[in-house]
Amino acid sequence: MGRQKAFLDKLSRFFQIRNKLLRQSLAECLGTLVLVMFGCGALAQHVLSSGSHAIFLTVNFAFGFGATLGILVCGQVSGGHLNPAVTFSLCLLGRERWRKFPMYFLFQTIGAFFGAAVIFGMYYDALWDFEGAFNVTGSGVTAGIFATYPGTHLTTLNGFFDQLIGTAALIVCILAIVDPYNNPIPQGLEAFTVGFVVLVIGLSMGFNSGYAVNPARDFGPRLFTAIAGWGDVFLCKGFTVVPPTKLLLSFIYQLMVGIHVEGEAREKKERAEGENVRLANANKKDVP
Amino acid sequence: MGRQKAFLDKLSRFFQIRNKLLRQSLAECLGTLVLVMFGCGALAQHVLSSGSHAIFLTVNFAFGFGATLGILVCGQVSGGHLNPAVTFSLCLLGRERWRKFPMYFLFQTIGAFFGAAVIFGMYYDALWDFEGAFNVTGSGVTAGIFATYPGTHLTTLNGFFDQLIGTAALIVCILAIVDPYNNPIPQGLEAFTVGFVVLVIGLSMGFNSGYAVNPARDFGPRLFTAIAGWGDVFLCKGFTVVPPTKLLLSFIYQLMVGIHVEGEAREKKERAEGENVRLANANKKDVP
Amino acid sequence: MGRQKAFLDKLSRFFQIRNKLLRQSLAECLGTLVLVMFGCGALAQHVLSSGSHAIFLTVNFAFGFGATLGILVCGQVSGGHLNPAVTFSLCLLGRERWRKFPMYFLFQTIGAFFGAAVIFGMYYDALWDFEGAFNVTGSGVTAGIFATYPGTHLTTLNGFFDQLIGTAALIVCILAIVDPYNNPIPQGLEAFTVGFVVLVIGLSMGFNSGYAVNPARDFGPRLFTAIAGWGDVFLCKGFTVVPPTKLLLSFIYQLMVGIHVEGEAREKKERAEGENVRLANANKKDVP
Amino acid sequence: MGRQKAFLDKLSRFFQIRNKLLRQSLAECLGTLVLVMFGCGALAQHVLSSGSHAIFLTVNFAFGFGATLGILVCGQVSGGHLNPAVTFSLCLLGRERWRKFPMYFLFQTIGAFFGAAVIFGMYYDALWDFEGAFNVTGSGVTAGIFATYPGTHLTTLNGFFDQLIGTAALIVCILAIVDPYNNPIPQGLEAFTVGFVVLVIGLSMGFNSGYAVNPARDFGPRLFTAIAGWGDVFLCKGFTVVPPTKLLLSFIYQLMVGIHVEGEAREKKERAEGENVRLANANKKDVP
Repeated sequence: MGRQKAFLDKLSRFFQIRNKLLRQSLAECLGTLVLVMFGCGALAQHVLSSGSHAIFLTVNFAFGFGATLGILVCGQVSGGHLNPAVTFSLCLLGRERWRKFPMYFLFQTIGAFFGAAVIFGMYYDALWDFEGAFNVTGSGVTAGIFATYPGTHLTTLNGFFDQLIGTAALIVCILAIVDPYNNPIPQGLEAFTVGFVVLVIGLSMGFNSGYAVNPARDFGPRLFTAIAGWGDVFLCKGFTVVPPTKLLLSFIYQLMVGIHVEGEAREKKERAEGENVRLANANKKDVP
Repeated sequence: MGRQKAFLDKLSRFFQIRNKLLRQSLAECLGTLVLVMFGCGALAQHVLSSGSHAIFLTVNFAFGFGATLGILVCGQVSGGHLNPAVTFSLCLLGRERWRKFPMYFLFQTIGAFFGAAVIFGMYYDALWDFEGAFNVTGSGVTAGIFATYPGTHLTTLNGFFDQLIGTAALIVCILAIVDPYNNPIPQGLEAFTVGFVVLVIGLSMGFNSGYAVNPARDFGPRLFTAIAGWGDVFLCKGFTVVPPTKLLLSFIYQLMVGIHVEGEAREKKERAEGENVRLANANKKDVP
Repeated sequence: MGRQKAFLDKLSRFFQIRNKLLRQSLAECLGTLVLVMFGCGALAQHVLSSGSHAIFLTVNFAFGFGATLGILVCGQVSGGHLNPAVTFSLCLLGRERWRKFPMYFLFQTIGAFFGAAVIFGMYYDALWDFEGAFNVTGSGVTAGIFATYPGTHLTTLNGFFDQLIGTAALIVCILAIVDPYNNPIPQGLEAFTVGFVVLVIGLSMGFNSGYAVNPARDFGPRLFTAIAGWGDVFLCKGFTVVPPTKLLLSFIYQLMVGIHVEGEAREKKERAEGENVRLANANKKDVP
Repeated sequence: MGRQKAFLDKLSRFFQIRNKLLRQSLAECLGTLVLVMFGCGALAQHVLSSGSHAIFLTVNFAFGFGATLGILVCGQVSGGHLNPAVTFSLCLLGRERWRKFPMYFLFQTIGAFFGAAVIFGMYYDALWDFEGAFNVTGSGVTAGIFATYPGTHLTTLNGFFDQLIGTAALIVCILAIVDPYNNPIPQGLEAFTVGFVVLVIGLSMGFNSGYAVNPARDFGPRLFTAIAGWGDVFLCKGFTVVPPTKLLLSFIYQLMVGIHVEGEAREKKERAEGENVRLANANKKDVP
């Protein structure tokens, strides 16, 4: 036991990273890897088993509880955003520092990339076994395992609105959950509640284009499929236009919703402080 | 950072509402919007995907967890009723003031209206793509996405009894959960438990007419469909008669159930007070 | 407000029951009613919608979360057994007094009877609409909505073993959850965990005869169907033999499992007390 | 009551086991029995009902919540590993003593063996009723109820990678959940979270060979099927090669992931201690 412990100590001292931002980014990377591994794995199981081992509901469960587990894995270190849109919103509201955003975005995308790679390795045989593998369009659309593609009924305008609503719903619920002034749920259950948010968004907003409410979860695996041999994954309608505008509009939405919540709390605090000041003044008057 | 914070401060001071009842009503509006958005979204996904992206269970999950999230979003501000029947019951039992009822009812209906509008916008293309769109009756019944319509097997009397039981089951469970004297679950988990109640009601009482246990959730989207181009959504059997009587009968039911629970607690309190008085008397005797 | 409160007070004083055992039995009655209403409602929805509004999983969810809600409604007053087998086990282990058993059994059965009646009223039209209604056997087996009937593949011996295992699994898990010495879950989550137990039993032991692990839940609705017009519901194989032996064998099982758990805790307590005595002795020695 | 208590006391004193490791192993045995009973029961229900009473999702739920219940039954006594790979990992990281590993492995396998036996007894009639019973391969593959067999599309290399990833995902999530330094969830909810991990692994990694991430859960029931009359259950591809390597590779994976987490915490502790020393020194300086 003693020698084992010493060896473990030595190993861990060697591998440890001392820069805090890098450590947080790495945690974010692992968390996003977990989310994408479970989510895309469920999509792979759904597509490749032709429905015998999954229904659309299981994909929603996997993304929801995958988000929960991703947050549990990295939440104490990095906050467990797993999503550049969440990081962006929190920076915008002044709850995180702006310099975190590019690092988090980069490492979230890297994590999503490797999450897709893990699932690609895991289902490599099943992918080759599946008719029409490695096609972006057609009957056997395995590209949809990794990235999101709009349904055939969807126009660009509606696709834009679809992603805007999905991301807005996600952000509003997450802000309500993690709001330090609102605080509606017991400490430690945030991860589960965020999982339910992702689950419900999948249940009600997944038909148009597969609820691509997370730019990193979409871009990382899409990059992987481009490298792994799928066709023109970047040229399809929906990808090129939507994500940047989504971020911009989620920005506008934040401004309209987040502020009210903050405002109430701030005022409450000020009132409390004001009373404290008055009390302090009253006390001062009493003293002399 | 400093300038961003100052700007956010300024913005939030400008937009803030100072009237407490209006603020609560607005919160109730947002919560009901979240509930209806997720619930009707799941119904839309169920109907429009012809079952490929949903089963009836996913609709139940969406309404259940949508209620949970709606309560989490607004619960700390307004209590998270999301349902005029709940507000009515709580007023009846003297736990909320009666003047809250009309305001809450109005804003819950407005929230449900806009929740339906969001889903209409989100699935606009899919609605046009779906055969028989914008019909209230017939094979492609998209009106059922927004409001509830009785099944063909249902007579008016049974429909009345159906809605009475559904609402009564909802109210009894909610009263048991939020009862300050009973207090069966840890602080902060009420929202999840109410979500389970809505889920279970959907699982077991959803076949007759789609568990319309929430007048605002039904009336708001119904109004929206009337405006958006669907046919005679108000003339169908089930709607015109049931809701008012439902409220009346839920009133009677409250009287029969709520009182017992309260009574026990009141008596316990009185006994405790009685003992305190006796103790106080005993102490008084001891003192002189 | 003042007059409303006074009126409510008066009403509740009039209706209140002062006998504690009767009050507990009534709570148990309401809790079992909730369980059976939700569970049998889901079975009705499953059978009557011919699978369009339910799958077998939704029935499992309804019984599981119905048990959770039933326990939440009555748990603080009566303990939330909802099941004579649970009451029997707890009496056997000395955690409840034996005189509670007949009262609880009676009122649990009454609650289950009225739960079935509520569902019968709710789905009255749908029952008449369903082909082959009011038959115990045949293609349209609506009797299975209310009570449990063994599958055609089941022999009496296997049916006996099936119910024995199901009840034993339920009791062992419940004893582990409510064990005051083991205490594995936070205060207030017992109801949810028992719900998960019932859910899992339905997922894995529901194929033979529909997991009739609760004599009251089976006997009350069976009695109701006998009165409401179904055929010879008591003569079918499985009912007459199994329940009494089940109770007897669950007794034997308790003896083999429950005691170990208790024993460990008792010993621990004795050891702690022993140490306290030794400490007290040591302190005594120190004092003089 | 008094005589009953005395009798229970006597009985429990007679049956009690005093050796702590044996007691822990027995608890582990019961926990694994619960897990395998519920999990394999759901598989049996899925296979034998030909899908009428189950979908693949219900199997995932049963294994997930079965793991939760197994941990709740034995967790306070033995830690609730239920899985030799988990025991191995915890020994490797120095959190459990190595001498626990063989005992736990043995008793976990015994528990899984008897869990399979219980399900065999429960569904004995249904097994004989099912076409092609007691075949390892072919259309009626009932052997898959008890142990895991690779899909036809799977090569040995991919099967190896499949099990490696599955076990690694399980271990990483469990280590994050039970990490004493990370501590992301409230006390007492670990069992539920581990259940979600098993559920999600089933949702996303169950298509290749049925997520055999637990050597005991696989080997015990496989041994049982060999005895109970199935064919060459040990000769099929996937079994003979994978498990030993899986353990070895999970070892490597542990080394790469576990250490980082530990390292951070250790450093934090050292830093805190360092500060304490500095503070103590500073205090010393102040004193004289």
